[in-house]
Amino acid sequence: MLKLNENYLKLPGNYLFAEIKNRVNAYKALHPQAEVISLGIGDVTRPLDKKIIDTLHEAVDEMAAAETFKGYGPDQGYRFLIDAILENEYAAKGVALEPDEIFISDGAKCDTGNFQEIFGLDNTIAVTDPVYPVYIDTNAMAGRAGAFENGRWSNVIYMPCTAENNFAPALPKTKADIIYLCSPNNPTGTVMSREELKKWVDYAMENGSVILFDAAYSAYITEDDVPGSIYEIEGAKETAVEFRSYSKKAGFTGTRCAYTVVPKALKARSDNGEWVSLNKLWARRVSTKFNGVSYIIQKGAAAVYTDEGKRQTANTIAYYMENARIIREGLREMGFQVFGGVNAPYIWLKVPGSMTSWQFFDKLLNEVNVVGTPGSGFGPSGEGYFRLTAFGSRENTQKAIRRIQEGLDL
Amino acid sequence: MLKLNENYLKLPGNYLFAEIKNRVNAYKALHPQAEVISLGIGDVTRPLDKKIIDTLHEAVDEMAAAETFKGYGPDQGYRFLIDAILENEYAAKGVALEPDEIFISDGAKCDTGNFQEIFGLDNTIAVTDPVYPVYIDTNAMAGRAGAFENGRWSNVIYMPCTAENNFAPALPKTKADIIYLCSPNNPTGTVMSREELKKWVDYAMENGSVILFDAAYSAYITEDDVPGSIYEIEGAKETAVEFRSYSKKAGFTGTRCAYTVVPKALKARSDNGEWVSLNKLWARRVSTKFNGVSYIIQKGAAAVYTDEGKRQTANTIAYYMENARIIREGLREMGFQVFGGVNAPYIWLKVPGSMTSWQFFDKLLNEVNVVGTPGSGFGPSGEGYFRLTAFGSRENTQKAIRRIQEGLDL
Repeated sequence: MLKLNENYLKLPGNYLFAEIKNRVNAYKALHPQAEVISLGIGDVTRPLDKKIIDTLHEAVDEMAAAETFKGYGPDQGYRFLIDAILENEYAAKGVALEPDEIFISDGAKCDTGNFQEIFGLDNTIAVTDPVYPVYIDTNAMAGRAGAFENGRWSNVIYMPCTAENNFAPALPKTKADIIYLCSPNNPTGTVMSREELKKWVDYAMENGSVILFDAAYSAYITEDDVPGSIYEIEGAKETAVEFRSYSKKAGFTGTRCAYTVVPKALKARSDNGEWVSLNKLWARRVSTKFNGVSYIIQKGAAAVYTDEGKRQTANTIAYYMENARIIREGLREMGFQVFGGVNAPYIWLKVPGSMTSWQFFDKLLNEVNVVGTPGSGFGPSGEGYFRLTAFGSRENTQKAIRRIQEGLDL
Repeated sequence: MLKLNENYLKLPGNYLFAEIKNRVNAYKALHPQAEVISLGIGDVTRPLDKKIIDTLHEAVDEMAAAETFKGYGPDQGYRFLIDAILENEYAAKGVALEPDEIFISDGAKCDTGNFQEIFGLDNTIAVTDPVYPVYIDTNAMAGRAGAFENGRWSNVIYMPCTAENNFAPALPKTKADIIYLCSPNNPTGTVMSREELKKWVDYAMENGSVILFDAAYSAYITEDDVPGSIYEIEGAKETAVEFRSYSKKAGFTGTRCAYTVVPKALKARSDNGEWVSLNKLWARRVSTKFNGVSYIIQKGAAAVYTDEGKRQTANTIAYYMENARIIREGLREMGFQVFGGVNAPYIWLKVPGSMTSWQFFDKLLNEVNVVGTPGSGFGPSGEGYFRLTAFGSRENTQKAIRRIQEGLDL
């Protein structure tokens, strides 16, 4: 008789975005004339840049002739893309990596979710709180999170990140084997400084832990001293895996391409005392459960690193970051306590007074027809916060802030 | 201290294609003038058909304008593709399925590998022998295969498929909870009849087992009475998951698109006695560890179902199947015992005399400079067999068979 993975049955329903949709639909049903503006979802809205479009067309044409047609590609990705990443994302920042340390994937969500598969089930995981839910849910599905009780998993170490600690998680009191960090952070929009990251790399070194570093938003860093890669920190090659993505860097949320860095120096001891390279284990996972990213899409991603591609994607990012400025400054003028939005496309605001995140959601929707995301949806320590995103159009962003300034009854 | 998934360390190196490459390279080094023809690898060589190319271009252009740009799509796939699948692949064969029973994925390899994640670790798996290695390896990585001893996993039921039993696996003597079947079969090129499939569906029904049915090659079926979908068999919706792919149907090996069917009627009992739909569990897995297939690629896949697309892909498949006929008949004329190649792009031949699969490999390479795949690489019961594929060019296929006919010393 077939036995299920019972861990799946412990998962709470992930109702955050479904609940948002329900409340918005209910409002619209009552107010059919209302023009609701969403600054809620973390999805891009600008079209792909011209150089990327041109290159995608070229790649499609290659698939039309036997001489240039591409069948199965290398599981880890094509060298033209890997080499462009090594040169532009790493060598340019003084980080030397080798081609077989890069794994091209179809998304940072997939790889941050899949990576735990190469670890044993008896590791303790630590996550910042609030957090991107995929880190926890995938560990829960594998059976590593324990039981879900009162909104928390019993075997997960939650590290609160709030205004009180300046969104810098404290080192855990109990030992953590697998540590998820995300900078620039989703949802708070804050970043980890060089010193903060160094503290974590040292902790991982001392405790034989691994850091799974989600840098999906690194392209949005505007301040010089903020590290865009954990490998800018000494010792990180022995302690950290890094996840990057074209989703936000180049508008690839619907086009799908990302990459994961697993340095060969990163090792763990097996039960028989042998040091095993995580790179080797991940390569085995990738070659067995994955078959590479579409050639066409990899070509499009590589176009990001041409001169035109760099210029065009930088312009698009600047467009979103101007939205972030409009939101941040607009709210600050009103007296809101606002975080993020400088090195990230997310603005994290403290809900005024003693309102809950959901109460503020309702207020914003009802009074000015603007939709955001309640912070409590990202974890217990997100309560009392609210996320707005810079991924809307300029017009909608300006209109939303004007409405909040003129119409919100504070 | 980080603990590894020790199951990965039990995996034997998968040296089949690496060993082939080594031997070919060694031969070429000694004979630099030799023109070696490969009928070994299961990868397509014909370009994408025109309608698909045109549609990919259109989809790329949609990504170039804000009005038609697509960000994150539905995790399970776009309805335009799902609806085309329902109509053309299933309704046309009298099989009624619902849209949320189809999951668009980036490859049948990925999904046949990932699907076991929703099952408990204490299930017994059964595979045909020879077999596509991904089924076993992914179960071994999850910890479900036991120990690897003398070329076999201790917790895996191997079901021999040889000329002696007409490549029809016998029902296992010990109970199997998860059964992997593949028809048209890779590597043997043989197919399961309606009666054979019915026997398995009945077995699964009686024993509360699930059948994971790999139909990646269904587009190559030429005989009317061979079922292309397991859902043509009564009871299969309660017992089977089906995997399909555009890799071989439309030349998408490097373009990446496939789909998995999980009927809502397919259920298993949880530890607390509740009947749980596998569809619900798989949907949860997909929404948490995957983020959908590229919009551009899904549009290209949907083009397969237009009138032009159908005509063009049928022509390409006919091209490969003519290669299969040339190989099959050419070898048969020489007295070889040959299987497959009628409803599948694979020809499975009995190695003459008492040669092993690898001895025949060397003979073919040395005497006529033709490369194939030793059957023993697909499992113990593959010993004494050899796989040739129909995916080469017509010219190379004809030349290879001529060389075998004229130059092989039998």
